[in-house]
Amino acid sequence: VIEPGRDFVEPRMAEIFSAPNRVQRMLDFEAALARAEADAGVIPRTAADAIAKTCTADWFDIESIRRDSVTAGNWAIPLVKALTAEVDESARGYVHWGATSQDAIDTAMVLQMRAGIDLLVELLAESGDICSELAERHRATPMAGRTLLQQAVPITFGLKAAHWLELIGRAIERLSTVRRDRLFVQFGGAAGTLASLGEAGPRVTESIAEQLGLQAPDLPWHADRDRVLDVASAVGIASGSVAKIAGDALLLMQSEVGELREGSAPGKGGSSTMPHKRNPVDAMGALASARLASGSVSVLIQNTGHQHERGAGPWQVEWAAVPDCFCFAANAADRTAAMLRTLEVDVERMAHNLRSDGGLSMAESLSMRLAEKLGKKDAHELVEELSRRSTDSRMSLLDAAKGDERVTEVLSAEGIETALDPTAYTGLAETYVDRAVARYRRGTR
Amino acid sequence: VIEPGRDFVEPRMAEIFSAPNRVQRMLDFEAALARAEADAGVIPRTAADAIAKTCTADWFDIESIRRDSVTAGNWAIPLVKALTAEVDESARGYVHWGATSQDAIDTAMVLQMRAGIDLLVELLAESGDICSELAERHRATPMAGRTLLQQAVPITFGLKAAHWLELIGRAIERLSTVRRDRLFVQFGGAAGTLASLGEAGPRVTESIAEQLGLQAPDLPWHADRDRVLDVASAVGIASGSVAKIAGDALLLMQSEVGELREGSAPGKGGSSTMPHKRNPVDAMGALASARLASGSVSVLIQNTGHQHERGAGPWQVEWAAVPDCFCFAANAADRTAAMLRTLEVDVERMAHNLRSDGGLSMAESLSMRLAEKLGKKDAHELVEELSRRSTDSRMSLLDAAKGDERVTEVLSAEGIETALDPTAYTGLAETYVDRAVARYRRGTR
Amino acid sequence: VIEPGRDFVEPRMAEIFSAPNRVQRMLDFEAALARAEADAGVIPRTAADAIAKTCTADWFDIESIRRDSVTAGNWAIPLVKALTAEVDESARGYVHWGATSQDAIDTAMVLQMRAGIDLLVELLAESGDICSELAERHRATPMAGRTLLQQAVPITFGLKAAHWLELIGRAIERLSTVRRDRLFVQFGGAAGTLASLGEAGPRVTESIAEQLGLQAPDLPWHADRDRVLDVASAVGIASGSVAKIAGDALLLMQSEVGELREGSAPGKGGSSTMPHKRNPVDAMGALASARLASGSVSVLIQNTGHQHERGAGPWQVEWAAVPDCFCFAANAADRTAAMLRTLEVDVERMAHNLRSDGGLSMAESLSMRLAEKLGKKDAHELVEELSRRSTDSRMSLLDAAKGDERVTEVLSAEGIETALDPTAYTGLAETYVDRAVARYRRGTR
Amino acid sequence: VIEPGRDFVEPRMAEIFSAPNRVQRMLDFEAALARAEADAGVIPRTAADAIAKTCTADWFDIESIRRDSVTAGNWAIPLVKALTAEVDESARGYVHWGATSQDAIDTAMVLQMRAGIDLLVELLAESGDICSELAERHRATPMAGRTLLQQAVPITFGLKAAHWLELIGRAIERLSTVRRDRLFVQFGGAAGTLASLGEAGPRVTESIAEQLGLQAPDLPWHADRDRVLDVASAVGIASGSVAKIAGDALLLMQSEVGELREGSAPGKGGSSTMPHKRNPVDAMGALASARLASGSVSVLIQNTGHQHERGAGPWQVEWAAVPDCFCFAANAADRTAAMLRTLEVDVERMAHNLRSDGGLSMAESLSMRLAEKLGKKDAHELVEELSRRSTDSRMSLLDAAKGDERVTEVLSAEGIETALDPTAYTGLAETYVDRAVARYRRGTR
Repeated sequence: VIEPGRDFVEPRMAEIFSAPNRVQRMLDFEAALARAEADAGVIPRTAADAIAKTCTADWFDIESIRRDSVTAGNWAIPLVKALTAEVDESARGYVHWGATSQDAIDTAMVLQMRAGIDLLVELLAESGDICSELAERHRATPMAGRTLLQQAVPITFGLKAAHWLELIGRAIERLSTVRRDRLFVQFGGAAGTLASLGEAGPRVTESIAEQLGLQAPDLPWHADRDRVLDVASAVGIASGSVAKIAGDALLLMQSEVGELREGSAPGKGGSSTMPHKRNPVDAMGALASARLASGSVSVLIQNTGHQHERGAGPWQVEWAAVPDCFCFAANAADRTAAMLRTLEVDVERMAHNLRSDGGLSMAESLSMRLAEKLGKKDAHELVEELSRRSTDSRMSLLDAAKGDERVTEVLSAEGIETALDPTAYTGLAETYVDRAVARYRRGTR
Repeated sequence: VIEPGRDFVEPRMAEIFSAPNRVQRMLDFEAALARAEADAGVIPRTAADAIAKTCTADWFDIESIRRDSVTAGNWAIPLVKALTAEVDESARGYVHWGATSQDAIDTAMVLQMRAGIDLLVELLAESGDICSELAERHRATPMAGRTLLQQAVPITFGLKAAHWLELIGRAIERLSTVRRDRLFVQFGGAAGTLASLGEAGPRVTESIAEQLGLQAPDLPWHADRDRVLDVASAVGIASGSVAKIAGDALLLMQSEVGELREGSAPGKGGSSTMPHKRNPVDAMGALASARLASGSVSVLIQNTGHQHERGAGPWQVEWAAVPDCFCFAANAADRTAAMLRTLEVDVERMAHNLRSDGGLSMAESLSMRLAEKLGKKDAHELVEELSRRSTDSRMSLLDAAKGDERVTEVLSAEGIETALDPTAYTGLAETYVDRAVARYRRGTR
Repeated sequence: VIEPGRDFVEPRMAEIFSAPNRVQRMLDFEAALARAEADAGVIPRTAADAIAKTCTADWFDIESIRRDSVTAGNWAIPLVKALTAEVDESARGYVHWGATSQDAIDTAMVLQMRAGIDLLVELLAESGDICSELAERHRATPMAGRTLLQQAVPITFGLKAAHWLELIGRAIERLSTVRRDRLFVQFGGAAGTLASLGEAGPRVTESIAEQLGLQAPDLPWHADRDRVLDVASAVGIASGSVAKIAGDALLLMQSEVGELREGSAPGKGGSSTMPHKRNPVDAMGALASARLASGSVSVLIQNTGHQHERGAGPWQVEWAAVPDCFCFAANAADRTAAMLRTLEVDVERMAHNLRSDGGLSMAESLSMRLAEKLGKKDAHELVEELSRRSTDSRMSLLDAAKGDERVTEVLSAEGIETALDPTAYTGLAETYVDRAVARYRRGTR
Repeated sequence: VIEPGRDFVEPRMAEIFSAPNRVQRMLDFEAALARAEADAGVIPRTAADAIAKTCTADWFDIESIRRDSVTAGNWAIPLVKALTAEVDESARGYVHWGATSQDAIDTAMVLQMRAGIDLLVELLAESGDICSELAERHRATPMAGRTLLQQAVPITFGLKAAHWLELIGRAIERLSTVRRDRLFVQFGGAAGTLASLGEAGPRVTESIAEQLGLQAPDLPWHADRDRVLDVASAVGIASGSVAKIAGDALLLMQSEVGELREGSAPGKGGSSTMPHKRNPVDAMGALASARLASGSVSVLIQNTGHQHERGAGPWQVEWAAVPDCFCFAANAADRTAAMLRTLEVDVERMAHNLRSDGGLSMAESLSMRLAEKLGKKDAHELVEELSRRSTDSRMSLLDAAKGDERVTEVLSAEGIETALDPTAYTGLAETYVDRAVARYRRGTR
């Protein structure tokens, strides 16, 4: 049974950071190490072969490794012990030769982060693909632009989707960049000097890196965790971006706004007491997960003080916080994609809401038109006065404008109507949609 | 298999926040609700009996409830459905009568927090008991006091343990206070008005509270989460306190200080490469767990914005962050107790370190003696000069003082020696030990 | 000029934590110390008098003290030096006798926190008083209850205000509790043993405490910062509570909801480009300030690791984070009070919104009525079906119900109407209002 | 007077984020906007000239702008008003034409961030330059490597400095990358459509960008804050890196370690009571500042939920948290550079400490030598036993080894001595130093 506290963990990401997978990645390191050392003439080829062929997680009692790790201080110690017991007797002396626990643990974490980035990118791309369709389909669908939660001037729903798309596109780009630039093998031995390997150190390091598809660093990075933070930040910023999408959707799904709705499905979003409710469960799950992911990233950002050549405390924090930020972020992305996949867009309600304020959101448009004749300052003040009158008397801005001589002196009735037509005032919305879609397609496909 | 990211989760606390236990606590709510409503004449007594006797977690398919909760939006909806299916047909109409999902979920969380507090207090008390013994045993054992990581004036190891004890004592007191004052039943129905219950609402609320041993609130508190934060803060501050103990211990266990050591045990604290290492694995596990706990509490402190009558996003965050802060904090407490239980105190090394700076840490003492004759300012400057000379020439402060006429004019050789004897300069250390121990015994037993 | 980054700092709170006030509070400590030591016969009475009468911040060059503190490591060192230079020559030897920098700095911070709590309580009480009026005035004003941002069942606006009031009342109570229980004088000398004072230590400590109106601790608490965190948590939870109020208000002020509005004033909440805008500037300022306050509290909660007898790093963090959490929290409270003071409540819009969903928010009410005849499960399913039909066909739930035989068989037309009348379904809302108001008046006046 | 809470703010960075500088950067935007609009034929050239020549912060009453901003909701509204009043009457109608407050505020913030990055890079480079010198000078200076705060195997002090250098080099590189890729002009008008500008929008945007030396974005980014977080993360990770350096230094400066010391200076690092103290004030100031910077970055990382087309709450949080993270980070970098500049390296003490454990830190070396004959497992266990014996009997490992037949059978006395000579066991330390120095010089010069 998955624990209740893990409700916001995406299952495939949990798999990547699972115990068996962690052990397998550590064994991948041990196998690569042995082969690299055989190539460099440090250990016998037969020993390397014996070690490499034993490096299969299935053959190990993972729960007992985990249990022993509590007193040992980390997973590498009992695993290396178990691996040593498992290999052919002749190879026993060569297991983990010259390496330290952190070499295996960190390299495994880097491999898991790589798989984690790939999955997260895949999940984000689902949302990105849908957003790009939404952006195109609703390129010209007028809706209220809202600043500080007040209706401002019109936008199109396509433009809103295009902004979501931009965020996702950059999240993917950012993750791809750290995947390319920040994933390095860890290999330094006891205190980062590879003293036990003599001259062979650099060659062995490069060979491990090559075998595992990672980069070889200039220096081991035992207590230099900035690249881990680069990855975590990319995950955290991605979480913030999906939180923005989920948050916008939640607001648009409010009963009083009603412009979006999550698709319904049996058992989805009901209430235990209110028969009419259709709750935005995906959006709210995405938002909660994203907050948890950001929280884990904050823990890492504040997890300073890796002491000397290996941290006592800070290093260990990563073992929980790194998986957590990936798992929560993946869930945020997954729930966002789920929400977008079945999203119901109420175009009529968008149009209705846009006009519901009696044309107030077109005030700027009227003001700009009047400014051509009256100057910006006078025009702004006049429209401010008309807006106030419109609000106070519950009259539309159109009627207020038509009934004011200062307006009718410089604008015809038709001119006033055009000035107050929202569909004619979406500016560059469509251009921006095109740009966002083009960049997303170019960048991530 | 426990997941690697959960390495810092205390198993008994994990049990308290486990899926079966969460379901049982929700069923406890449902049973109490049914009985309360029968007492108030809202539902038939037979229905209540039928419901109550079905409220046993073992009879439910918990994994399926969890799975359905993803689309349902919470655990209560599928659980109530399953419970309804399970009870005698005649009672089916009365399950969860007038309640909302949040009533069951929050009340269950409060019950879990109560059990969590009890366990955490128990774990802390283990450390407290050992600290009080250490404080008494080492009441007069001199060691260097260290401020800003520099040796200052002497203290006793008992005084250090007394400070740890104070922190633990107050952590327990703080947890006990929130246990007494902050644990309230949640019961408000759909939007917190209990409209579906008519006049019976208050009576039903009180009866549920009484049955579960919780307090009945003036108002339901669906979106008023401050009391949850009171509990979380108490847990967070407790974590910070054990982090202080673990942190001090880590510093005292450094090779170059060597005043403390974790007890050794087979498989404990070794290194995969360095045969001589005895790593402070409990202290470092405690520190890592405490940081993770503080991180979860920070997530809760920043988890603002529970909207209107039920939060979409913030409320759900608690489902992960509340268990996490308890589980990590419990582990921090447990590892600290483990460390303290087998702690090896090197009294000789303490004495050695205290004298290793050539008496510099007694500079204040000498200065105070001289001040009686020379005034504080002149005495301070004279001793500052002697200290500098002592450091620069690697001469002891004793020799420096004895060789300076300005000193020998006002102090005899014996007077200088007394002034520089650390064991004679521990001030109120022992008084403070007595006070701390007395208060701990009074307060928590 | 106040710096832009300090826009969210409340000016009176900034005054409390200002440089002159900090220096004055440190001088208050020095004066109390001197008097206490004279009483205990540690220093001459004339010296104490000379010191005490010099302890006036106005006489000191505060900027030079601050500047020197950078290299000195804290403010006490240059201040004690300046004070020593300033007092009568005969008293010079007795300034700061037996004390350490941290004694003066921490005690000053405690005095500032006390003043800060008083101001924060005053600011919160402004909001509390207005909320209690709003609660009473709108005790029976129906509005939509909203859960997960969806309309649920009706509440009254008075009930919403009562929840706000509860949060504020508890915030005040919590702050009052820490004010009473957590404010202790700091006095321990070099490493917390008062070794330089001999037997007089306890008496001097108590006398300082008495003079300053603080409690005397069992032990000095140089590196035991849990009580600072108690205060910070109380401030942080208060911030979260005002963030809830500001957040609810922001949502209710949305153009599409329009149930609340900030009062207008010249220059308030306009837009540089949109003449019609009336932005919720107080609510948004309150929310931003509250988030910043919570952030500072999180920094403190994660600021673990005060080493040994005085922290190097963590202690100094408090000098910025403690003032910040108070200053931001005060601003959050002040802006919330400002918002509430001029709040415009649109009762008609509340009624309108409540009915705008065609009666769906009364679905539970209808369901409960039907349940009396049909049992809860069948009634719930029937109303769910009617709700769906109502939504899909844009028919009101009333019409849907009246047109369904399964309903009309068990309920008369009048019965259906009553079941769907929101004003008749606000349950205990008014009772809860009365309770909240009564408790607030009892508790905080 | 600088406020006490701002003790950890670097003055030059404070200048960059000061009120006058913020106003000037907003005016820079307004001037560039006017010129761009004149070029595009949107407003008259004479109006643009009149506006541009008025855009000098000195001419404005900045404190009154700040004061009015509280009710206006932001600084742009009163500034635009003041600018409008100040320009020639004929130009008044064209000030801020088509722009929204956020356009001016965000663009100004981007310009400030650019200057902030440059200063931070400069401050970091000071530390980098010193670290590269330290690395070269101490390339071969042996010191204890320490893992989990226990002595492990030897490293050189040059290697430690090389790690610090790596962190700084990457911090600079990371900041340079965001400076190049993440600094975009903001220009979108009321809701991000530039509707008021007609076709001219893209041209005007590009021209503003060109004038200010920023990039022109595909879309305005009013509520898309991910690029702000990229910058903040780079600052936060830099802070973590200097915290690592300061933290290592603090540990090496402990009385019992004594391998490093901050240079002394009059008034630096003394104690108000202890004449002998030389406190690590720069290191501790750096650490405190870095924690505060990380805290501000965490606030930003968790500051999710920028609603719709402009955030109400989250956007405003940036106005305080962005300057704070820069100001604290700059101070952390500055104090670290100050510490490094006068750092006293005690090479003898390093050598002494390395040998103080009786050769235990050479256990791995002995084990590797023995492994060539005995196999790794047997060798490891044998040396573990010798280490235990050495510790228990306070005998050196050398003596323990020489006295054990299992060792002497396979190693000569000379072989044992060589195996236990720390200076012969620093592995690739010097190679790594060379690599780090070479990369730093290549990358940042």
